Amino acid sequence: MKPKILLLSTGGTIAAVPTANGLQPGQTGAHLLSMLGRLPYDVTVQDILQLDSTNIQPEEWQFIAERVYTLRKGYAGVVVTHGTDTMAYTASMLTFMLSGLDVPVVLTGSQLPISNPLSDAPYNLRCALEMAVSGVPGVFIAFDRKVLLGCRSVKVRTTGFNAFESVKAPVVAEVNSDGLCFTDPLPPRPAGPCVLKKELDSRVVLIKLIPGMDPGLFRALESMGCRGVVIEAFGSGGLNFLRRDLISALGDLVRRQIPVVVCSQCLYERSDLTKYEVGRRALAEGVIPGEDMTSECAATKLMWALGQGMATAEIAEFFQTNVAGEVTLR
Amino acid sequence: MKPKILLLSTGGTIAAVPTANGLQPGQTGAHLLSMLGRLPYDVTVQDILQLDSTNIQPEEWQFIAERVYTLRKGYAGVVVTHGTDTMAYTASMLTFMLSGLDVPVVLTGSQLPISNPLSDAPYNLRCALEMAVSGVPGVFIAFDRKVLLGCRSVKVRTTGFNAFESVKAPVVAEVNSDGLCFTDPLPPRPAGPCVLKKELDSRVVLIKLIPGMDPGLFRALESMGCRGVVIEAFGSGGLNFLRRDLISALGDLVRRQIPVVVCSQCLYERSDLTKYEVGRRALAEGVIPGEDMTSECAATKLMWALGQGMATAEIAEFFQTNVAGEVTLR
Repeated sequence: MKPKILLLSTGGTIAAVPTANGLQPGQTGAHLLSMLGRLPYDVTVQDILQLDSTNIQPEEWQFIAERVYTLRKGYAGVVVTHGTDTMAYTASMLTFMLSGLDVPVVLTGSQLPISNPLSDAPYNLRCALEMAVSGVPGVFIAFDRKVLLGCRSVKVRTTGFNAFESVKAPVVAEVNSDGLCFTDPLPPRPAGPCVLKKELDSRVVLIKLIPGMDPGLFRALESMGCRGVVIEAFGSGGLNFLRRDLISALGDLVRRQIPVVVCSQCLYERSDLTKYEVGRRALAEGVIPGEDMTSECAATKLMWALGQGMATAEIAEFFQTNVAGEVTLR
Repeated sequence: MKPKILLLSTGGTIAAVPTANGLQPGQTGAHLLSMLGRLPYDVTVQDILQLDSTNIQPEEWQFIAERVYTLRKGYAGVVVTHGTDTMAYTASMLTFMLSGLDVPVVLTGSQLPISNPLSDAPYNLRCALEMAVSGVPGVFIAFDRKVLLGCRSVKVRTTGFNAFESVKAPVVAEVNSDGLCFTDPLPPRPAGPCVLKKELDSRVVLIKLIPGMDPGLFRALESMGCRGVVIEAFGSGGLNFLRRDLISALGDLVRRQIPVVVCSQCLYERSDLTKYEVGRRALAEGVIPGEDMTSECAATKLMWALGQGMATAEIAEFFQTNVAGEVTLR
């Protein structure tokens, strides 16, 4: 008997068709599957959304998580076709919403629509289907002959087929002449049972520091109702305090129960707020170190923690917890 | 006669010493130079700042530009030692402030203080000095045996010695067994004469989009006096318009004469707002495409353009001008 896979389609470039307004998603999941020819899997398809992933937002994360949670029973795994632009965010958020996940949930998509004979879609989809029957539970992205941990994925290229990188963590598996080869060790197995926790608070803003930024920005964020802030700070996590005192401004936010997570604007390698004075001062004001988390993961983890009703101190503690391989704690 | 080089020291990790509050800059330029032993250059040193580059801000950019402009005469080139955290921003801004530059101005620094016997500082400093006598005018970063165009440089690693990458542009030169080897073609030679134009408007904010972001943020930016916005949008430059309509919110800013530059949050490869509906709609609202510029360069170019008194329409035109190799226009 062929292993059973559930394929949920949500749109994206993989399903895109040209229109007068530029590329727009339009193809069904059944159409995507039909482009692969005969397969050794028994795939059930459900079209649940038809969106450019730029328009996939917290409400869609909740909807996708709920669909995966409800429909996954009886399947070896779930494949979600999705646009690439926000795929890393969706994968990170699903990681938190579907705690104790008991099957592989594999997001995939493509840089070139499947209708193009040179498309990367068939390769990505095949890799995702194979990962879905691997028996390794968790949320993953399958792309360019690699499987990445969802909460470590970043889209780093706008056009190349190697669009995603696993940042500050090894890839989970690679396709080579032995098929899908897992690296050792496998990501931590989620502790079951699987529970759907889809509440979140999207009132989070991600600010990338530039020299000269007015600390008044943080007061403006507070007045617009922002509930959490992620900062991409300089280098290892530095924030300026001379003349424009960002560190005190962030301290004010923390004291008003608005958690502030500080990551690095450097794509690779971890932040470390303990190394330089410009980081230590921020720690003393109560900011939460992002350690080696991606910004995508830090933002979704913060939204999710706020949605679970955690207070600032609990969130700080939660950020010192490795839920699913998203952070390397020291 | 040895070629004459001016070395301006500004602090940074290269000059750092351990203190009770973590690493802080403390060494002089003369000390840095003394760590290299005998050199085939006649180097004049001036200590002009002693800062962690996290605290280098627009006022320091103006000061450094003014020092370079005033003091460069009689030297083959200028080396500026600088912290790595904001070096790419300083290099981009100097590119605009020192138009028509007639000598090499080479920024360098290190990931490990020069006092450490394993430091990358001696290599970086030697590379910068050699570039300074190359006769190739422009603003550069010398790091890890490579010379990068300043306005294309991004700090991508927090700890590795290969901290900088030349993004969406080839490196200018590499050190190998033939010495400093230039790639072909060389960056465009600045059109002289050299003029100091140091006016800027730092009231610019850089926002990295995350799904679910409240469009009210852009109204809040306006009310805090923000004069220009750079957005790191999704993928090729997409902005969501369903439910949370970021595109209209940005259109409102543009109509109120606040220029909005849209780049990609993908580090590599160019943005292209013409490809998908989610980009085309933004173009129709009058946002300025960032093309393949780095965010560091887009932010500094916008600050500088605002400081020169350009109106929004002029800024849009200026962003379609390649000043010093910072953008590839189509």
